[in-house]
Amino acid sequence: MWTFEFILEFIGTFAFAISGIRLASAKEFDWFGAYVVGVATAIGGGTIRDVLLDVTPFWMTNSIYLLCSGLALLWVIVFGKWLIHMNNTFFYFDAIGLALFTVVGIEKTLGLGYSMWLAIIMGTITGAAGGVIRDIFINEIPLIFRKEIYAVACVAGGVIYWVCLKTIGDGIATQAIAGISVVAIRLVSVKLRICLPTLRKDRDEL
Amino acid sequence: MWTFEFILEFIGTFAFAISGIRLASAKEFDWFGAYVVGVATAIGGGTIRDVLLDVTPFWMTNSIYLLCSGLALLWVIVFGKWLIHMNNTFFYFDAIGLALFTVVGIEKTLGLGYSMWLAIIMGTITGAAGGVIRDIFINEIPLIFRKEIYAVACVAGGVIYWVCLKTIGDGIATQAIAGISVVAIRLVSVKLRICLPTLRKDRDEL
Amino acid sequence: MWTFEFILEFIGTFAFAISGIRLASAKEFDWFGAYVVGVATAIGGGTIRDVLLDVTPFWMTNSIYLLCSGLALLWVIVFGKWLIHMNNTFFYFDAIGLALFTVVGIEKTLGLGYSMWLAIIMGTITGAAGGVIRDIFINEIPLIFRKEIYAVACVAGGVIYWVCLKTIGDGIATQAIAGISVVAIRLVSVKLRICLPTLRKDRDEL
Repeated sequence: MWTFEFILEFIGTFAFAISGIRLASAKEFDWFGAYVVGVATAIGGGTIRDVLLDVTPFWMTNSIYLLCSGLALLWVIVFGKWLIHMNNTFFYFDAIGLALFTVVGIEKTLGLGYSMWLAIIMGTITGAAGGVIRDIFINEIPLIFRKEIYAVACVAGGVIYWVCLKTIGDGIATQAIAGISVVAIRLVSVKLRICLPTLRKDRDEL
Repeated sequence: MWTFEFILEFIGTFAFAISGIRLASAKEFDWFGAYVVGVATAIGGGTIRDVLLDVTPFWMTNSIYLLCSGLALLWVIVFGKWLIHMNNTFFYFDAIGLALFTVVGIEKTLGLGYSMWLAIIMGTITGAAGGVIRDIFINEIPLIFRKEIYAVACVAGGVIYWVCLKTIGDGIATQAIAGISVVAIRLVSVKLRICLPTLRKDRDEL
Repeated sequence: MWTFEFILEFIGTFAFAISGIRLASAKEFDWFGAYVVGVATAIGGGTIRDVLLDVTPFWMTNSIYLLCSGLALLWVIVFGKWLIHMNNTFFYFDAIGLALFTVVGIEKTLGLGYSMWLAIIMGTITGAAGGVIRDIFINEIPLIFRKEIYAVACVAGGVIYWVCLKTIGDGIATQAIAGISVVAIRLVSVKLRICLPTLRKDRDEL
């Protein structure tokens, strides 16, 4: 059970849940509310994917994902005041989770016989939609619609997965290259403050 | 058709719809908007449950739930100005609805062969998720994430259902004990102003 | 493929996507965020319908809907500053899309063997729910809950479809009368500034 992939998935789930719990805390949510936001951030994307693909949502057959989110809540309750010093750590964890969730989403969709373009969309939903649900719960405009390269890293990773699949074939190498690409794009874009253009300039006219 | 359980369910649906319509009214929604928010509050939790369980949403095969929400709208239009004096009545109705929705959600999930922990989650979603959708529609932070014991009463009722199922077995007694527990926890926690702790103290650090 | 109905559907998708992209732009969303809001506006209603009906969401088997939304994004990027002069054009396009989406939703639901009242609801969801998702994404109270006759035009069109089905039978005439009714109700209500009543007067008491 504790394979390398599963450990990465656990880290990703934990990091996503932490991000939801922290933002919920800042809005004075109680423990239950913080837990729900953490869970929604961690499993929301995969749940939307599975509902659209018409398969049983992944967390309904294995309680580890909800337990992992519970551990994240415990972590914030106990170590909350030191969390600020761990921003960098969680940033890396979050990028790892994003990459793994994207690859998992792509492979699940392809495994069900859908087309590659839909697999890229489902990979992106798996990685990025949880954060959108989180922001709706805390009543903020979804962060990934306005700032930084986030979901676009999933899309780019999906395209790279596609290219690898066509050239070097299905397997661990394709997964690794696509996943590392997502992490790299995410990290480089944040370090260099690369953003997508906005349509802001048209605001007056729109 | 008008069994005791069905009458409770009708009361619960009516109370949930009233809560949605009242909050929508305070935001100057028109009749249609108020009706949609009322319906979403009343049937939203059960719909999410049924979509996750991959069965036809319960209200799609019986129009009584939408008619009941329509009655609630009519009630607010006609008796709106006296509603304030009925706050206590609706508080009790809402607690009854919460309890019944929780038990219905648990039993439906178990009936489909899922595990007990998932049934507790589905019971909680059935009872509490409608209120979350309501608050998203009126653009407020979901109340149950910040104030009072609400969804936690569903969780506790679900655990009590579990204990009863293991000891006294399946049947009306288990349903009644679990349902009355939800109502009791809800009422006592509001009377004594018992709240869950928040993570507020960490706000500066987070 | 480029039948008359498909051209109308393409125009409707384009107009819906434009409405999402414009509102996203006003909130300084980046290109990706604007595209997601545009897509959600265009395909959100039909996706909710298909998930509730437990069929594969329509856009997952044909990439034309996502491409059409991409064209809408390109249009706003290139012609953004002239969009303000095209408000009337897009208002008519939007009304056409609303009518067509309503009829498509009704027919799909009836085709799956559901009852007429559910078909009217699904037609309304197909036409109007995308705009609700759009407004949740940009963190505003859904416009159609407070202003103008919009979803109610879908409901009225659905009832007219029902009457036609009972009298002149299934066919292009019934579709056309129902669709034109939706457009007519929408246009007349906006021209004459007809609104539904609100429950505002009860605000103090509620």
